[in-house]
Amino acid sequence: MQDKVDLAGALASFDEAFQPRIVGYYNDSKLQVAKVRGEFVWHSHPDTDDFFLVISGRLTIQLRDRDVELGAGDLFVVPRGVEHCPRADEGAEILLIEPRGTPNSGDSQEREAFPEVEL
Amino acid sequence: MQDKVDLAGALASFDEAFQPRIVGYYNDSKLQVAKVRGEFVWHSHPDTDDFFLVISGRLTIQLRDRDVELGAGDLFVVPRGVEHCPRADEGAEILLIEPRGTPNSGDSQEREAFPEVEL
Repeated sequence: MQDKVDLAGALASFDEAFQPRIVGYYNDSKLQVAKVRGEFVWHSHPDTDDFFLVISGRLTIQLRDRDVELGAGDLFVVPRGVEHCPRADEGAEILLIEPRGTPNSGDSQEREAFPEVEL
Repeated sequence: MQDKVDLAGALASFDEAFQPRIVGYYNDSKLQVAKVRGEFVWHSHPDTDDFFLVISGRLTIQLRDRDVELGAGDLFVVPRGVEHCPRADEGAEILLIEPRGTPNSGDSQEREAFPEVEL
């Protein structure tokens, strides 16, 4: 059985941005912590929603028609198929939930997905 | 499309313990905020894992063979089929994720499930 996960401690154990680390699983989904610095890439996930919860810092989820501004303790779900581009000018730490096998860069042709890595 | 959810604000909008409020959805799962005060009931969910993230306070997930002690920012997943009984002597606020249709009291015969209520 998995043990508990201290999210702040897990996030303190690495520094790379846009390289999610898997800290556990919930059914067929991977529970990941990730750092965001600067702008990621526009993409969508045709088969799944994308769960974001900000642990620290400020995160902007850019959508094609608006920006969603998130601070610590704010949660947002990008619906499946909706184009989005996360950005954090000052840096942010997040909990990210996606089904196992989901590439973090979705359907982007500009950026390769980071491989699935357990912390 | 759902808007962002401020978890602390959502939790401040009600006071009842063991009555989860749905604040959004991720695929077929309901994203719920809940308050825990005192002891819930022993139960398991035969068909799903049970996701707990503590937002504030301290939560004990009692398992049959050990207690898992969680503080703010600690995450724990009770595997499907594993008996557990949440307890928070001083109170705790949590994010709880379960598939839609999952009764919060699982297979317990002692306590009726709280109905699914959107905040």
